[in-house]
Amino acid sequence: MTEPLTWRAPQVERADAARNRQHLIATAREMLAEAGPDRLTMDALAERSGLGKGTVFRRFGTRAGIFWALLDEAEHGFQEEVLGGPPPLGPGAPPLDRLIAFGEARVRFLMDNRDIGRAALDGRQANPAGPQTSLSQAHIRMLLSHLDLGPADLGLLAIQLTAALDGPLLLYISAADLDHATTEIADSLTNGWRDLVRRVARPLADR
Amino acid sequence: MTEPLTWRAPQVERADAARNRQHLIATAREMLAEAGPDRLTMDALAERSGLGKGTVFRRFGTRAGIFWALLDEAEHGFQEEVLGGPPPLGPGAPPLDRLIAFGEARVRFLMDNRDIGRAALDGRQANPAGPQTSLSQAHIRMLLSHLDLGPADLGLLAIQLTAALDGPLLLYISAADLDHATTEIADSLTNGWRDLVRRVARPLADR
Repeated sequence: MTEPLTWRAPQVERADAARNRQHLIATAREMLAEAGPDRLTMDALAERSGLGKGTVFRRFGTRAGIFWALLDEAEHGFQEEVLGGPPPLGPGAPPLDRLIAFGEARVRFLMDNRDIGRAALDGRQANPAGPQTSLSQAHIRMLLSHLDLGPADLGLLAIQLTAALDGPLLLYISAADLDHATTEIADSLTNGWRDLVRRVARPLADR
Repeated sequence: MTEPLTWRAPQVERADAARNRQHLIATAREMLAEAGPDRLTMDALAERSGLGKGTVFRRFGTRAGIFWALLDEAEHGFQEEVLGGPPPLGPGAPPLDRLIAFGEARVRFLMDNRDIGRAALDGRQANPAGPQTSLSQAHIRMLLSHLDLGPADLGLLAIQLTAALDGPLLLYISAADLDHATTEIADSLTNGWRDLVRRVARPLADR
């Protein structure tokens, strides 16, 4: 019933490059925990890690690239829950229930990582075509294919729903609102997602 | 039937500031037409306009701010069509027809202005909380309020639908794809939007 999904391309990386990457990610996480996202710059990361600006630049390209890498790491645990955790988020529940559970988990994930997510959107690399985007689109599309939707462009519908899920948190809701009404916003987005996918999931009547 | 909408706050601006703004926008448009978005930088605009870096900086803040201002200008004509043009985009058609027509017009608008739209997302100011976002959200929400949707958080639904409409073009579809398959992508997004809002617009059955 469930199509196999591979979200992360197999990485072939030299041992020293892998060590550098792990060291840079760990250092960036420390800096983030200590002083928040604004202090985490390319220069500061190079200095703190002791690896030099060239290495940091080759690894991340831009400051936003650091946050993409942090988001990618955080995504790991989320991926594992979705692919192999207990239902309804993991396999074994009906597709609509999994779709609803995915949105709830995704809202929670984006709220938990909202500083990183927004910082990743800064800079020239505004396109969040990182693994988390493909993850959401691929997973939502797979679940939609198991629903009886009638004629529909599932790829496009998956893109639209991904945008409807990520867009409010990444783009439209202000950081100040997020800080002051975290729980209310999470509940509202979770309820809104459930409502939206229920509406979308019913077969389309002729008109 | 139609609630009054004001998308642009009344601007109180000194005459010389207004003249500078108009001159900067016109100059930016010329530079864009001649050499594309990559050449349109703060420094180049200051030099070409003869107004100095300080003026350009105070007016736009960042390079992305130039593109937001260009998008805002382009939005003017679009606004007039939506608020006062012929139905179904303008007033006078049933709300679902207006919703579908709005999506079609919005896709066309974003395709026509895609270089500007994407460049506006660059830089620190990644939040497209410009007037065009409020426009779409306010208009979609107004139309939703005239549909019999049953219990629904209309404000959130309007945000989700705005993200579903703008997200694919602004965030997920690559610039190369957009250049090579312009008509196909526009048709696909327009059809997808029609399908999505038809699904959403039906009253939600008890479950």
